[in-house]
Amino acid sequence: MTSAWRQRPVGIVGMGLIGGSLGLDLREQGLRVQALVHRPATAERALERGLADAASTDRAVLRDCGLVVLALPLDRLLDPPAELVAALPAEAVITDVGSVKAPVLQRWGPLHPRFVGSHPMAGTAEAGVEAGLQGLFQGRPWVGTAVTGRSDAGALAAVRELAESVGAQWLSCDAEAHDRAVALISHMPVLVSAALLQAAAAGGEAAGAAQLVRQLASSGFADTSRIGGGNPELGTLMARCNREAVLAALGHYRRQLEALEALVQGDQWTDLTANLAHCQALRPEFLSS
Amino acid sequence: MTSAWRQRPVGIVGMGLIGGSLGLDLREQGLRVQALVHRPATAERALERGLADAASTDRAVLRDCGLVVLALPLDRLLDPPAELVAALPAEAVITDVGSVKAPVLQRWGPLHPRFVGSHPMAGTAEAGVEAGLQGLFQGRPWVGTAVTGRSDAGALAAVRELAESVGAQWLSCDAEAHDRAVALISHMPVLVSAALLQAAAAGGEAAGAAQLVRQLASSGFADTSRIGGGNPELGTLMARCNREAVLAALGHYRRQLEALEALVQGDQWTDLTANLAHCQALRPEFLSS
Repeated sequence: MTSAWRQRPVGIVGMGLIGGSLGLDLREQGLRVQALVHRPATAERALERGLADAASTDRAVLRDCGLVVLALPLDRLLDPPAELVAALPAEAVITDVGSVKAPVLQRWGPLHPRFVGSHPMAGTAEAGVEAGLQGLFQGRPWVGTAVTGRSDAGALAAVRELAESVGAQWLSCDAEAHDRAVALISHMPVLVSAALLQAAAAGGEAAGAAQLVRQLASSGFADTSRIGGGNPELGTLMARCNREAVLAALGHYRRQLEALEALVQGDQWTDLTANLAHCQALRPEFLSS
Repeated sequence: MTSAWRQRPVGIVGMGLIGGSLGLDLREQGLRVQALVHRPATAERALERGLADAASTDRAVLRDCGLVVLALPLDRLLDPPAELVAALPAEAVITDVGSVKAPVLQRWGPLHPRFVGSHPMAGTAEAGVEAGLQGLFQGRPWVGTAVTGRSDAGALAAVRELAESVGAQWLSCDAEAHDRAVALISHMPVLVSAALLQAAAAGGEAAGAAQLVRQLASSGFADTSRIGGGNPELGTLMARCNREAVLAALGHYRRQLEALEALVQGDQWTDLTANLAHCQALRPEFLSS
């Protein structure tokens, strides 16, 4: 049985990394993709790249869509223009792709009767209309979060089918649990990693070894500092839109780091080894794919 | 002109990752490598793998060597058996490969007249006699540190030639500067990364999302936690043998992380973006190769 949403065009708002990649994968399945974008040049390029069948700055492009994916940055998602909201078909299932869920559900629950939050956990360092690529979601988790107190099983099922059709692994949980989890494994680590870059620079300066720290940094430092050296606007949005959970995660982090520092301070080498052995055992649990 | 040390066998004490890799590269150059190891089975395997021309548990294997590399773990290097010291030819140049230099120079300066500290900044996650591989040092920094107040230009030149012959990039600096630099870019980051693993586990537990944090962790978390999930004995040795510099580096780190946390706490999003943009600009300075 073909689901209702598959018999109509899929709308995508925004043709960045996530929107563009999704467009490519859905068209590969034979679905018709209609994209709403901000600038005419983006529409032109999205069509050239085959990210959508139709792409326009005119909101009417979303008319007739059975499912619309809001592939917008978090700040724009949380502050949507009234014209965009008005252009969404009332009977369509609407979802987003933001990395924070509780504020999105709070904002969008009242704006559309069939809104479902979702978060595909996939990405690259790239952004913009050139960034989209096929197979981005393959094997990656895709989290769905329903609006509290609303029971629209059909809407959640449609988003799940969308996610699974592009190879993602569906998970459903409540928005607060999602936000606390991503604070711990994604948003707080950006700050942990950023602080490392600044500590190496400041400490090198203080030790009269500014050049030496740069010369000696190797693959371990490169890996640990990667996400701290990423897109500053994205890092800020994550902290801003998930502020409480990020502060709680930083609290957990500080306690763990202080415990390790106390072991070094106290020359407790056997305990430090046991502690690091625990970390060594923990890590594979976090490397599912 | 061929250097004096190249006209005699090179001795290597220890056939682990560094000793074995060095043996492979030196033999490739036509040099004769003679290895002293701890166990007969290691000697046998080192010969089978072609890591050395001769390998033995008998210290006499070092006789006639013009240059001897002590490729031992830091704890054994800092507490060498008297018999090993006695077996080192008096006229040979002696060097080590430890990741901390000041304590090594303090210990070994009085033990041998031609000792020079050195630290090849190369490695993999592997250890032991099976770990050695060709080309490990290619393009990697190799730091040399002379014993303070001793002027044996020939000894330092010999170690430099050794390093450059296997493709490493030679750097020479004083031991204290080296130790402070590696604390900042290598030893302290192990603790920063380890604390992240424990924070994600503890925070996930506290949020009732123990399974969810594990399911959602992706490549960013994998990179940031890699060195924290490494060999616990090695992490402990680095902290123990470079304790003062690691504590100072943790101090720098804590100040940077607290500054970032204060920006989140104070809703200072413009300042946070500027701070993260600074990190983004800093990182390429630390990625030389």
